Amino acid sequence: MRPSGRELNEMRAVSIETDVTKHAEGSCMIRMGDTHVLCTASLEARVPPFIKGSGLGWVTAEYGMLPRSTSTRMRREAQAGKQGGRTVEIQRLIGRSLRAGVDRVALGERQITVDCDVIQADGGTRCASITGGWVALRLAVNKLMKAGDIVTDPLISPVAAVSCGIYAGQPVLDLDYPEDSEAGVDGNFILRGDGQLIEVQMSAEGATFSRDQMGQLMDLADKGVGELIALQQAAVA
Amino acid sequence: MRPSGRELNEMRAVSIETDVTKHAEGSCMIRMGDTHVLCTASLEARVPPFIKGSGLGWVTAEYGMLPRSTSTRMRREAQAGKQGGRTVEIQRLIGRSLRAGVDRVALGERQITVDCDVIQADGGTRCASITGGWVALRLAVNKLMKAGDIVTDPLISPVAAVSCGIYAGQPVLDLDYPEDSEAGVDGNFILRGDGQLIEVQMSAEGATFSRDQMGQLMDLADKGVGELIALQQAAVA
Amino acid sequence: MRPSGRELNEMRAVSIETDVTKHAEGSCMIRMGDTHVLCTASLEARVPPFIKGSGLGWVTAEYGMLPRSTSTRMRREAQAGKQGGRTVEIQRLIGRSLRAGVDRVALGERQITVDCDVIQADGGTRCASITGGWVALRLAVNKLMKAGDIVTDPLISPVAAVSCGIYAGQPVLDLDYPEDSEAGVDGNFILRGDGQLIEVQMSAEGATFSRDQMGQLMDLADKGVGELIALQQAAVA
Amino acid sequence: MRPSGRELNEMRAVSIETDVTKHAEGSCMIRMGDTHVLCTASLEARVPPFIKGSGLGWVTAEYGMLPRSTSTRMRREAQAGKQGGRTVEIQRLIGRSLRAGVDRVALGERQITVDCDVIQADGGTRCASITGGWVALRLAVNKLMKAGDIVTDPLISPVAAVSCGIYAGQPVLDLDYPEDSEAGVDGNFILRGDGQLIEVQMSAEGATFSRDQMGQLMDLADKGVGELIALQQAAVA
Amino acid sequence: MRPSGRELNEMRAVSIETDVTKHAEGSCMIRMGDTHVLCTASLEARVPPFIKGSGLGWVTAEYGMLPRSTSTRMRREAQAGKQGGRTVEIQRLIGRSLRAGVDRVALGERQITVDCDVIQADGGTRCASITGGWVALRLAVNKLMKAGDIVTDPLISPVAAVSCGIYAGQPVLDLDYPEDSEAGVDGNFILRGDGQLIEVQMSAEGATFSRDQMGQLMDLADKGVGELIALQQAAVA
Amino acid sequence: MRPSGRELNEMRAVSIETDVTKHAEGSCMIRMGDTHVLCTASLEARVPPFIKGSGLGWVTAEYGMLPRSTSTRMRREAQAGKQGGRTVEIQRLIGRSLRAGVDRVALGERQITVDCDVIQADGGTRCASITGGWVALRLAVNKLMKAGDIVTDPLISPVAAVSCGIYAGQPVLDLDYPEDSEAGVDGNFILRGDGQLIEVQMSAEGATFSRDQMGQLMDLADKGVGELIALQQAAVA
Repeated sequence: MRPSGRELNEMRAVSIETDVTKHAEGSCMIRMGDTHVLCTASLEARVPPFIKGSGLGWVTAEYGMLPRSTSTRMRREAQAGKQGGRTVEIQRLIGRSLRAGVDRVALGERQITVDCDVIQADGGTRCASITGGWVALRLAVNKLMKAGDIVTDPLISPVAAVSCGIYAGQPVLDLDYPEDSEAGVDGNFILRGDGQLIEVQMSAEGATFSRDQMGQLMDLADKGVGELIALQQAAVA
Repeated sequence: MRPSGRELNEMRAVSIETDVTKHAEGSCMIRMGDTHVLCTASLEARVPPFIKGSGLGWVTAEYGMLPRSTSTRMRREAQAGKQGGRTVEIQRLIGRSLRAGVDRVALGERQITVDCDVIQADGGTRCASITGGWVALRLAVNKLMKAGDIVTDPLISPVAAVSCGIYAGQPVLDLDYPEDSEAGVDGNFILRGDGQLIEVQMSAEGATFSRDQMGQLMDLADKGVGELIALQQAAVA
Repeated sequence: MRPSGRELNEMRAVSIETDVTKHAEGSCMIRMGDTHVLCTASLEARVPPFIKGSGLGWVTAEYGMLPRSTSTRMRREAQAGKQGGRTVEIQRLIGRSLRAGVDRVALGERQITVDCDVIQADGGTRCASITGGWVALRLAVNKLMKAGDIVTDPLISPVAAVSCGIYAGQPVLDLDYPEDSEAGVDGNFILRGDGQLIEVQMSAEGATFSRDQMGQLMDLADKGVGELIALQQAAVA
Repeated sequence: MRPSGRELNEMRAVSIETDVTKHAEGSCMIRMGDTHVLCTASLEARVPPFIKGSGLGWVTAEYGMLPRSTSTRMRREAQAGKQGGRTVEIQRLIGRSLRAGVDRVALGERQITVDCDVIQADGGTRCASITGGWVALRLAVNKLMKAGDIVTDPLISPVAAVSCGIYAGQPVLDLDYPEDSEAGVDGNFILRGDGQLIEVQMSAEGATFSRDQMGQLMDLADKGVGELIALQQAAVA
Repeated sequence: MRPSGRELNEMRAVSIETDVTKHAEGSCMIRMGDTHVLCTASLEARVPPFIKGSGLGWVTAEYGMLPRSTSTRMRREAQAGKQGGRTVEIQRLIGRSLRAGVDRVALGERQITVDCDVIQADGGTRCASITGGWVALRLAVNKLMKAGDIVTDPLISPVAAVSCGIYAGQPVLDLDYPEDSEAGVDGNFILRGDGQLIEVQMSAEGATFSRDQMGQLMDLADKGVGELIALQQAAVA
Repeated sequence: MRPSGRELNEMRAVSIETDVTKHAEGSCMIRMGDTHVLCTASLEARVPPFIKGSGLGWVTAEYGMLPRSTSTRMRREAQAGKQGGRTVEIQRLIGRSLRAGVDRVALGERQITVDCDVIQADGGTRCASITGGWVALRLAVNKLMKAGDIVTDPLISPVAAVSCGIYAGQPVLDLDYPEDSEAGVDGNFILRGDGQLIEVQMSAEGATFSRDQMGQLMDLADKGVGELIALQQAAVA
């Protein structure tokens, strides 16, 4: 029934390839089906002004799509002169989600910027960015710990995300683009490795939804995130 | 236990004053405690390019805060040369939420822009904007129907929103600013008059949350939105 | 003969409501007929770089119109990405006018920003902004003096403004929008409480004008500003 | 008593050199003492959208200063990414003033853009721009008339401008930069050849002013503009 | 003697992987040593306004670097709100170079946009972009020809580019980043498959250069471009 | 054969008038035929952040065209909100070229900004800017040396530039606009007084070129720059 032939609760094939660029402190290419996102974590000396001198660290994120990551070419945001509303919304979500898994005291007064650049898009880019972004962050923090710059691990728990939605009246896991563009309800679920919730965003897109349906989507998300966290752990092992 | 002395499930005093500006097709000033938002609905001939000729209507929203609506003065966004990420995120949410209550075929090829300008802020401005924005929209649509420009009512159901969160370990309804700035979990719930969900956004802010807690916040939101919808109905009667 | 039925030298009904927002150090809503402007005065620690260390204070102003303060919706300047030429011109005028009534030595090295936001427009918004802006400024300075932060009153004299013009061949006081859009000559007169002039701006808009007519408009302005200053004094008493 | 040794009612040496660039339909270099402004008038096919199809013409102006026209280098506005408030204010004044001398019906549906670029600044650049701008406009219109594109002369009367102010307590004509930066009161007077007023702008800069002083400055302006108009006529003869 | 141990006239290992994204009409990843650039060619219906209706086609290019393609993180241009001078210069060069190999009549009134996004940088990104960009362009044109949309091949000859410079006093081929940052003279040579020159840019960076040295660099470039064109041909075969 | 009737290897009439503005530390108006560029050199205390504290000086350039320097009016870049790609490319070239003639140690930690503003354009504005810019720079440095602020002359050698191209199949020196817009190959050659090359840029514009043709253009450039340097020397003597 799904365009891809997947089961309702079946994820796309996911792979996480680490250390894909030589410059970044941490990096990976995450592929969720045909959605490919390059995630890098950059360690930076400067922290934002509002925490200068506080001893606390900061994790932030930026998001972008290559102009031809999509089926028709999008205008390059650098050319347009500003990041669009959707981009801003997504990068704020990625940053907020990753910070929820970080002990900022243990990180110390340093900043890690996670860049998530979509090389090829087929739905679910924000979730792939969070899941891959955490891997890049983990690798960068590992480097800091190995070097002895940090003693206590500032990463409390892995963070991963998956989208679920109601497609053709059925709750389905990990929407691809053909599903996403038709889904009546669309949700993004960000969880930690211990099953705690970090962020939930559900939107009616044509159809509204009930609390029962919320529960069904949450069940799917639990399953999906569980699988993603296993893949993250394998990737950074 | 709450700074305001309210019960855990008690809303702030809410009032909705209609027809507050002489130019707009629909308008109201909504006051949720010390949060005051001026909402206007403007009927416009032009529709966005992507629906030109489709026969469908469009409802969109813009959001702004007066520079001194907050306890310390904020930089004016027109001065800064762009709308900040938070503004963009909020106005997209308002527009999406209001559209979920609109039959765009019945509206016909016209656009209604709902402007939500925060005169005074004390937490919950995006929820007040949605609730007040719907009242402005209702009044503007009434005018269209009275004039015979529209035959079928395009407003399917009222739309209202409330924030809930976990403050000092307890689920509380309708966060004010002192609570919002301390809450470990913060959620915005947008519902229709028939109890269906339109949008749910829950974020960990320091603390994560469980599915049980999600349910408790949803219960509070149900109660709060019920009260708001009664007030909306009274206001537009 | 005037669209409103007013005498040639008759002002619109004017009211000044003070302390209308809980956050600002000084605030008022000034209503000149259907023109309503919210004025707030914000005390700020920072002064502009060019007076840092000089011991002198600074008073500046910003001006904005809500998108639907006008009869057809205007584009939001924050959305457009810049303040328009008219906005820039008006806010420079407001700041310059208010500064002309301030002893910057007595104010000391602090800045007061006066925000004038037009809630509803019906002509004469810049004059209403100056007159209401001075009230907000007065209230903020009162607070500083009460707290003992300032010893000598830095406000030399009240500052108020009124527009006059030649409408249908006759000099008239306090143009409303229907008059303003038809007037052949349009002037803004900013005076101090002692009758001294601070700024005069007269523009031909279709018709030119003679020195005699300048005198007639000045006479009207004297009368109008006298009334406004009495209202300011009553408001801040 | 004046830094330059001039009489109180004495203008600086003024010259107007015409046809200084080969491309523009009309052009001149106006020199008022050490203030040198290059003025060009460009005939353009397009008119602004708000008059399309009206049969009316449009005259507009733009103003700029070369970065090193001033005693210390100013930031290039194209580099800064926007025109400053002062620039916007000035170019709106120039356009408005020139239009006051134009019969837009006789001009027909075409636009003339007058560019005023300050090559060297020593006070009074906006007045020099208006006076020189009118010469460029006159020359461009002459070309149109010679070509038979226009039958009735659309230029009703010459337009010229001069600044006057109160310097060291005395009313003086045509302020140069050392006077301008010290003047307590500063005014710009734009008149037509028939002595009618087009625009008057007087500002207190430290000192306020009385109606008597307004009259004295007006007297000086009458004298100065009379001289300028004679020079304009000679230049375009 | 070269940091990499290469011979003076030895290129880095070069590979060109085609069809790397599923959406673009043509694409490749070109790797010149550690410089990796993703090139996509997008066929677009619209042509720039200046050739509308001319029957001529257009090829243009855009260039970007991922924020962490470099050894320290660069600011994202979309965030900064504009493309930097270097970016603009490079993308103009790529577009100009590719157009020099295109018969715009044969292409017909359609536009192909070549996006060159640097995934990892180690010197020579503009040359890699041109060489890889031509491959993407070739593949996109092949698709058009296969579909019968174009009859005559609009690609006259392959286009490839290489950098040469004077490093440690010696002319060397294909500078990598350690060489580029130290080179006294730096040149980019763009040639066609028939040996004709399209663009030559040589810059003194510390040292100047003689005509003899120009000749030596040209010799190296001939050799390098010859090798690149062989690789292009193999890639698109 | 050339539109102007010049010989193939004949420059336009060139003049360099120095000290044309009273404010700049160095200035000239360079006229190459109908191309007129005003060049000023401004001494500034601040150096760019990346050399603060290094003891090294900096020379940079900015370029602009007056809106009606061209045959049809161009949009003012300050109005457009950004410098176009061509402007950015040119000003980077001017700065780079001038720096190649400067001993930055001898200059000491100060910045000289060379502004090149095109008053009238007829082809070759970038070359005229470099040639005239060097004269302005020379005069500013002379002032510093006379004042004893600099002991060793930081100007190693004069820098001048000329364009050459292939027009109607023939190599010609110093293209004017009619030639430039038709030329199949267009080159800019920047040399020092000792004959050393600083920058060479050759572009195919329709026709490609061979190494032989490169040599012919270089020969013309040698001749032209020799003449320009003699004029520079005369001007600053």
